[in-house]
Amino acid sequence: METTSKLGADLVLNTDVVRKILVEFLKDEVTRAGFQKVVLGLSGGVDSAVVLSLAADAFGPDQVRAVLMPYRTSNPDSRKDAEEAARNVGVATELVDISPMVDAALHALHITDRLRAGNVMARERMVVLYDISMRDRALVLGTSNKTELLLGYGTMFGDLASAINPIGDLFKTQIWQLADALGVPPAIVAKKPSADLWEGQTDEGELGFTYHEVDRLLFQMVDQRRTDADLMAMGFDEAFVTRVRTRIRTSQFKRRPPVIAKVSTRTINVDFRYARDWGI
Amino acid sequence: METTSKLGADLVLNTDVVRKILVEFLKDEVTRAGFQKVVLGLSGGVDSAVVLSLAADAFGPDQVRAVLMPYRTSNPDSRKDAEEAARNVGVATELVDISPMVDAALHALHITDRLRAGNVMARERMVVLYDISMRDRALVLGTSNKTELLLGYGTMFGDLASAINPIGDLFKTQIWQLADALGVPPAIVAKKPSADLWEGQTDEGELGFTYHEVDRLLFQMVDQRRTDADLMAMGFDEAFVTRVRTRIRTSQFKRRPPVIAKVSTRTINVDFRYARDWGI
Repeated sequence: METTSKLGADLVLNTDVVRKILVEFLKDEVTRAGFQKVVLGLSGGVDSAVVLSLAADAFGPDQVRAVLMPYRTSNPDSRKDAEEAARNVGVATELVDISPMVDAALHALHITDRLRAGNVMARERMVVLYDISMRDRALVLGTSNKTELLLGYGTMFGDLASAINPIGDLFKTQIWQLADALGVPPAIVAKKPSADLWEGQTDEGELGFTYHEVDRLLFQMVDQRRTDADLMAMGFDEAFVTRVRTRIRTSQFKRRPPVIAKVSTRTINVDFRYARDWGI
Repeated sequence: METTSKLGADLVLNTDVVRKILVEFLKDEVTRAGFQKVVLGLSGGVDSAVVLSLAADAFGPDQVRAVLMPYRTSNPDSRKDAEEAARNVGVATELVDISPMVDAALHALHITDRLRAGNVMARERMVVLYDISMRDRALVLGTSNKTELLLGYGTMFGDLASAINPIGDLFKTQIWQLADALGVPPAIVAKKPSADLWEGQTDEGELGFTYHEVDRLLFQMVDQRRTDADLMAMGFDEAFVTRVRTRIRTSQFKRRPPVIAKVSTRTINVDFRYARDWGI
């Protein structure tokens, strides 16, 4: 496969094992949280298609709510791809057009800038998913991958918001491998990744490097804990290394809960941080 | 003071010391994050009035954005109190009427239920604050207190969303003491706490107990790590203890980032969790 040959052995996934781990993870965590149903936003991209497929495996198609949330300017192909992904695993879809919500916000805040508009869209989708979560007692599944999370390439309290994320420890190039193994429609796996927030937007165009390049670097930098000197000795470009490390550092706030000032003996998220299954 | 005499010594704050700690905390964290300005939602309640006052102390009134975000059904007194709190510390206010945004969401999602509507309002306010955060390069300050956070009495990705929260380690009854010391207008300190999501709503009515009662219990349960047996020996009612402990446990998900399935050597928020000042 072209994808894996470009990557070398490090990022090649044992898709059978990973699939089993992730399906069990979903069953365990959702049950433990007291839920039987899950909900996710289906964008037409490969990440949400993978999560959908894992969720359908874990809970059965009837227990999964797949929500399409187009904005007026969204590419109509995104919606077709999302519908195809859902049909492929037998999950019904629900359509919520976010245009009136987004437009009301853009107007109230006098937004013309497309970055600010993109954040509004991502957050209005969160509003929809969390409302359906309450309406149907369905836990919200996250669809951000490890590459995006490390680079901070996502909207806080928008697409980064979820209860449980089954793919947050898989790099984008690993998502592609898993998608193939899960039988995600090939057109979805093959298309250029895009947040579809404006016409012609692509992730790689916006980031300024390819997922293959950055995943190789992130694996060495984060998983293998290589120093900059090591990375340069391995042939990575110094400017690229610096740029990626800076992105990881400056986006750390997006991966953490709010920082609370400590004034007592026991402070939330400082010395009051229980495991999910906190027994008392 | 009536408030402190009801509480006993445990919850009495040294307001001079705490004020200094919190102002220094704000300066440190905001500077470290690379910001000079802050933004917060001003509800007319005592919590946001306290945060406003601390922020004005830390950065000067001109560096603080105080945003009023009424919904059509919000009590007009809330707005007056918010304006009075801002005037009191010399901070200008900005008004964003969230009614069109909220109504668009209520319509798109066919919401009639007031709990779901309340969550939408809280989240649309987050959308506003985070947009202003980007527009003005101002860090979003949280205004949830320790009592609310422990009881899960707040909307995830709504009022619970912030970058930095200076009062998240202070119980509600301690906020009242600090508010007095900071010179928050007495009418704001004296009024019944309410999320003002529907007419006649009060926190204590909704929770089913008073802040004085629950803060005494939370202090013993959380800060002092007392068992249920200890707590009952101290005179706390068994049903009350069980109810509060259950709320803490079942709201744990609101205080944590999304749970990510571990499949690699280094997973976000499992073994990749740097301090804010991560140096590499």
